[in-house]
Amino acid sequence: MIYIEENIKNLFRTKQPEGRAKYIRLDQNENPDGLPKWFFDSVMSEITPSFISMYPEEGVFISKYAKYLGVKEEQLCITDGSVTAMGYVVRVFGNPKKNFLSVTPTFGMYKVYTDMIGMNNIQVPYEKDFTFKIETILNAIDENTGLVCLVNPNMPMGNVYKKEDIIKVIEKARKYDATVIIDEAYYYFYDQTCLDLVDKYDNVVLLRTFSKLFTLAGLRLGVVISNPKFTGYVEALKPHYTVNCVALLFAERILDNLPRVQKELEDNFNTGKEYVLNELNKNNYEVLPSHGCFICIKAKNKTAEQIAQELKDKYNILILIGKGELSNYLRLTICNIKYMKLFMNALLEIDK
Amino acid sequence: MIYIEENIKNLFRTKQPEGRAKYIRLDQNENPDGLPKWFFDSVMSEITPSFISMYPEEGVFISKYAKYLGVKEEQLCITDGSVTAMGYVVRVFGNPKKNFLSVTPTFGMYKVYTDMIGMNNIQVPYEKDFTFKIETILNAIDENTGLVCLVNPNMPMGNVYKKEDIIKVIEKARKYDATVIIDEAYYYFYDQTCLDLVDKYDNVVLLRTFSKLFTLAGLRLGVVISNPKFTGYVEALKPHYTVNCVALLFAERILDNLPRVQKELEDNFNTGKEYVLNELNKNNYEVLPSHGCFICIKAKNKTAEQIAQELKDKYNILILIGKGELSNYLRLTICNIKYMKLFMNALLEIDK
Repeated sequence: MIYIEENIKNLFRTKQPEGRAKYIRLDQNENPDGLPKWFFDSVMSEITPSFISMYPEEGVFISKYAKYLGVKEEQLCITDGSVTAMGYVVRVFGNPKKNFLSVTPTFGMYKVYTDMIGMNNIQVPYEKDFTFKIETILNAIDENTGLVCLVNPNMPMGNVYKKEDIIKVIEKARKYDATVIIDEAYYYFYDQTCLDLVDKYDNVVLLRTFSKLFTLAGLRLGVVISNPKFTGYVEALKPHYTVNCVALLFAERILDNLPRVQKELEDNFNTGKEYVLNELNKNNYEVLPSHGCFICIKAKNKTAEQIAQELKDKYNILILIGKGELSNYLRLTICNIKYMKLFMNALLEIDK
Repeated sequence: MIYIEENIKNLFRTKQPEGRAKYIRLDQNENPDGLPKWFFDSVMSEITPSFISMYPEEGVFISKYAKYLGVKEEQLCITDGSVTAMGYVVRVFGNPKKNFLSVTPTFGMYKVYTDMIGMNNIQVPYEKDFTFKIETILNAIDENTGLVCLVNPNMPMGNVYKKEDIIKVIEKARKYDATVIIDEAYYYFYDQTCLDLVDKYDNVVLLRTFSKLFTLAGLRLGVVISNPKFTGYVEALKPHYTVNCVALLFAERILDNLPRVQKELEDNFNTGKEYVLNELNKNNYEVLPSHGCFICIKAKNKTAEQIAQELKDKYNILILIGKGELSNYLRLTICNIKYMKLFMNALLEIDK
């Protein structure tokens, strides 16, 4: 029998959706409009046939991003999206003989990556009212814990963990030699960060992405931030040339133009968020309090499934529906007010 | 002690070069000019802020590329460059308890990836005259062989393997349940392919790239082609969204415009190759016969190191120098005649 690695042989993967371009995409926490046109055009004008024919170089971006974050260059490892970064971190720091500990629900790929290395996955649940008690995860940390992951803000609930609580998790994990992943994909929508903890503790790996506030989901750019030794291990595992030159150029120019680009993106987001939360409230929709660029909305009159289907078929709008205890919730991406208006008008038409 | 995966802890990695943009790059087998301007401009005009803000979709490209190759869609897995693909293939099909068998010299990342999974690496050498006897590798295949790799044309020699010889390797490897990787990064510069063998044998994985003839090195697009079952395993290991939307769009448009784009790129290459081989011959330079987009040239009067240094310092030209038995050889990327002229003029000035 031809050899196939055992964990991969039995790995279950779901397919990613296709054909989304023609829809108003409020399902994957992207920003459907993307970058401001003035900025986009200026970056595009720098791209030449010669530029895309050269193997990409990370140095200039890394140097600028390190300066921006206030960390050393050797504390950064960039990847083709933070989804890829998660896999590296699990492979480097995940002891296959121990447990991977996270909350449920959370971002699904962590489970896939731990399955890939044959690591046992322990998921601790939310309370019945969709709040999360830090004791639940603290109590689950023991001598069998190999890796702990907190997505902050978490997905799809949108809840956040207090920094003092995260520190408790890190300190308890440290007693058992376990590393803690803090996934800050939705940083910027919630401005508290654990960045300083990568220097204060020797068992912390932080993840960031350029897909969310900075809208580069199509280009793929994620970042691993840790102590230089840990980042070096992730870098060792990473194939070279995996972040493409266009992603690097856009990200570099975002840093060069940061106050203006960030303000435009944040203003659009905040206006959209304020509008949609107000409207939902006015119309008596129950909404889980969220610190991310998404909210879970409880369906009122029709089922979440019916609403999502009609939004797609009649209004060309994609949203997600929750799973498990959230199965009667719609998950909506928050973005520019024009899309929030389209969504609200459609929702009120459908769910009556 | 915090857990670090043992093989990764001890992995040796070299840094990729930085700061190459300002040079005439004849060192990494890229095409310094890249795509024809008419084609580049037309693809660029399709890219919008919204396009790069959406998670990339592979479907349309996969479907067109499968049709072009004459394989089933489920036989293709695309990756962020074929360097990444190599790692996946080694991880899925490489039994850590067995040997990885390749020739030496060849592309260096195979050794890194086998070290990553703790697989023993066996490298069989060329003859003293830089030719390669297929018996050398055939004789090395035994019950301890887990994976065999042939880069065809091989790098940096530029030699090719006869198809009947490759079939012998595949058949002998099959007896020992070993998979054979055929890396066709330099296909198009040499038009014989082993593509049909992925259907004829159940232990063959073929790799292709869009970095070489199609000049998309900066964008990152590699392809794994195998039987549907094998490709499925590689797909299972792959993080989603790893190929970015710009790479996918360029590659799709290359297929849409294939005869014209390919002819322009090939014509430029062939004119450059004919010119530089003629000139080297006229000036009594010894050249290893190559079927890739690169050649090894024996230094005459100065050492290869001196020549490379002067090319860089005085003429702004980057080339590589060989290692080991090839240490007095220059490795030159073959491309457009204007660069070949710049190189030849500089070489004749320096090496006298």
